[in-house]
Amino acid sequence: MTGTLTAPAALPGWTTDPAARAAARLDRSGFDPGSDPDAVVVAGSVDEVAAVLAHANATGTPVVVRGAGSGLSGGAVAGAGSIVLDLSGLDRIVEISPADEYAVVEAGVITADLDAAAAHGLRYAPDPASLAISTIGGNIATNAGGLRCAKYGVTRDSVLGLDVVLADGRRIATGRRTVKGVTGYDLTGLFVGSEGTLGVIVGATLRLRPAPVATATLAAWFDGIEPAAAAAAAITAARLQPSVAELLDSACLTAIADAGGPAPRGGAFLLVQTDGFGADAEIDAVRAVVEPFAGSGSGSVEVAADPTGAEELLVTRRAGLPALERLGRVLVEDVAVPRSRLAEAVGEIAAISDRSGIRIATMAHAGDGNLHPILVLEPGRELDEQVWACAGEVFTTALRLGGTLTGEHGVGLLKRRWLRDELGDDVVDLQQQLRAVFDPRGVLNPGKAI
Amino acid sequence: MTGTLTAPAALPGWTTDPAARAAARLDRSGFDPGSDPDAVVVAGSVDEVAAVLAHANATGTPVVVRGAGSGLSGGAVAGAGSIVLDLSGLDRIVEISPADEYAVVEAGVITADLDAAAAHGLRYAPDPASLAISTIGGNIATNAGGLRCAKYGVTRDSVLGLDVVLADGRRIATGRRTVKGVTGYDLTGLFVGSEGTLGVIVGATLRLRPAPVATATLAAWFDGIEPAAAAAAAITAARLQPSVAELLDSACLTAIADAGGPAPRGGAFLLVQTDGFGADAEIDAVRAVVEPFAGSGSGSVEVAADPTGAEELLVTRRAGLPALERLGRVLVEDVAVPRSRLAEAVGEIAAISDRSGIRIATMAHAGDGNLHPILVLEPGRELDEQVWACAGEVFTTALRLGGTLTGEHGVGLLKRRWLRDELGDDVVDLQQQLRAVFDPRGVLNPGKAI
Repeated sequence: MTGTLTAPAALPGWTTDPAARAAARLDRSGFDPGSDPDAVVVAGSVDEVAAVLAHANATGTPVVVRGAGSGLSGGAVAGAGSIVLDLSGLDRIVEISPADEYAVVEAGVITADLDAAAAHGLRYAPDPASLAISTIGGNIATNAGGLRCAKYGVTRDSVLGLDVVLADGRRIATGRRTVKGVTGYDLTGLFVGSEGTLGVIVGATLRLRPAPVATATLAAWFDGIEPAAAAAAAITAARLQPSVAELLDSACLTAIADAGGPAPRGGAFLLVQTDGFGADAEIDAVRAVVEPFAGSGSGSVEVAADPTGAEELLVTRRAGLPALERLGRVLVEDVAVPRSRLAEAVGEIAAISDRSGIRIATMAHAGDGNLHPILVLEPGRELDEQVWACAGEVFTTALRLGGTLTGEHGVGLLKRRWLRDELGDDVVDLQQQLRAVFDPRGVLNPGKAI
Repeated sequence: MTGTLTAPAALPGWTTDPAARAAARLDRSGFDPGSDPDAVVVAGSVDEVAAVLAHANATGTPVVVRGAGSGLSGGAVAGAGSIVLDLSGLDRIVEISPADEYAVVEAGVITADLDAAAAHGLRYAPDPASLAISTIGGNIATNAGGLRCAKYGVTRDSVLGLDVVLADGRRIATGRRTVKGVTGYDLTGLFVGSEGTLGVIVGATLRLRPAPVATATLAAWFDGIEPAAAAAAAITAARLQPSVAELLDSACLTAIADAGGPAPRGGAFLLVQTDGFGADAEIDAVRAVVEPFAGSGSGSVEVAADPTGAEELLVTRRAGLPALERLGRVLVEDVAVPRSRLAEAVGEIAAISDRSGIRIATMAHAGDGNLHPILVLEPGRELDEQVWACAGEVFTTALRLGGTLTGEHGVGLLKRRWLRDELGDDVVDLQQQLRAVFDPRGVLNPGKAI
């Protein structure tokens, strides 16, 4: 089938080539719209973005913005009737300001490339697990998190300003290049996490932060998830501030061992990093807090003496997702709860797994209560209704524990049916009115996010 | 003159008493609306807030929300025809959660009271200079800053969620109690800094942070503002992260000495604090960076050995504003520039002072490029057109240097005429449409902010 849409004049990046359309249909959420989009535009400039939007707005055609297609909630999924606007070619790092600690980038820049380019003793703090493949624009659209956000915040905390093309093709700039500023409503914050529904983010001014002078790493193994979660809570109660605090349950550890990774030294694993001038002193304080909860076997708590040792301790955390993907198709979920409910959440998720017969392994950013329950399907099994029902139980559990449907992946397509359970009707209605201000004709990623 | 408005039924806090109306007319901006508001309601409950708003919305009556009246931009100023809704009585600290490091408070809580109540090794990080008198609700309405925001961010960075009464009297909750969460648009961020124009913030869930285990303090005196600003820039370039970095110019230092405070040891003063496990090591690094720029006299750089010594070094910074207020009426301004333009900004402000004949002393939060040029009027002089023209030159200078009209005080009444210069027409128009979504009848603080 050829796309039915006609290209606006003078748009070199427009194609209805079947292979290009098929390649733009899915993201990494596992959701399949059942058809390919009608056309793909690989934007070569902001003017081309504006031309596509003006055309879409005039014709009432849905536009789905795409960066690297690495999203996990279906926000970039595109089917028949829609145009995919691919921003991956807008990948210039326009400016790095060492004096003012910011970077100006186009939306298609790969996150890891910005971090590498920052140099000057600076780094881009947000580190979503996808950073080697995901784009800054996608990170902003979903307000992506990462491991380091326990200390350095999420993507929003690093966005100073945005360049946006509105639905009608007009261009606006939001925010500023200063650290502070309160003139007018915070449109920058409104666009962060808006999942392509309020405008097309084509560029950003991002805060860079000093790379830490030192980092210290601790790994601890526990008899089970309860003492591990208790150790994480005790770190908080001691008012320590790790930059990273990652928890893996026994289902993760077993999968890692089965894949040839490190053998588990217990039923749960906690990885902690501290950084800055006091990194070593703070990791010692972490150790003192964690040890009473750790397993009794030798080597249940280890502190890395040097970067090589730290890398060895990090292996277990890094091996988690690949080890699970080896076992079958995975659905990577993403809920958050108040940190005090972390153990309870992990326990309830394990019970959901038992009831449903669907294997769920859980990794958590323990520092901020963000859990990634990973549903691992038997080989050949699709994302059927029973799988979604199981995921739905995870979501409603998070809400019941005072948490949220999504900590850092976004609502996309997958979580819309639970949206009103979290936000309530009045807030959803307000948000839909806000959306209509920016996109009165409803052409920006319709059916997604809210 | 008695207020002409009629009270809605059963509203015990409603008064048209002339003294109460006169007391609710002004804030600390220096702007006088020329008349008293028609009525004041000291809200005793959220239900009363809702009743006032439902009444105002039905009758098209402007409502001006008031906390402590400590605002500096005219956001709480109220004249004839309006109702002042005073939230200072809603001052309960509802919950402190040490395990999840948050506080739930009503809007009228005094900022310093929350900080004191946090306990458990926690603190409320934002520390506007007004913290002993200002309310959390006012801090949120203006997205207030403070000294520590160089490291810990502004008010917005500590607001997890809000309880809001909408213009029509409906109540909504925004945000969440988890550290992370991306369900729906960020309404919380939209309300922060909205200066009473989108809804009435009656309560907030606020992030608490660990009180630092150690704090180190350094004071340095310089021959003039250029080397002082260069030292501040060198601290940034060395990728150090002070929690506080305050700069005072010679006009401040002279006024402090004239008021019987510490004698100046040079033409500019820089106060730096570091905190956390590495506070001492980091202050040593600051010292090494600052010393080459400091004055050649003895004692031009001092590091406090203990809390008492730190208090002595802080005296100069704290004495600044009181010493200036002694000389005449002051207009405390608030602009921000990229940190690299700090010296240029201070220099241009001094030139504006010379040209206008109006004394301007400048204090700056050097860590984030936020300047407070303080216009000091001769005794008896009012805020006449020439004073505003002088302030206007300061604002346009900040914009020309890539900065913003207001770093932390808000737009209020005073800066509206420069709003489009910073934001552009398209953005202001969008913001007005957003405002209309929340307040279609235009009863919330009309004529303010945007």
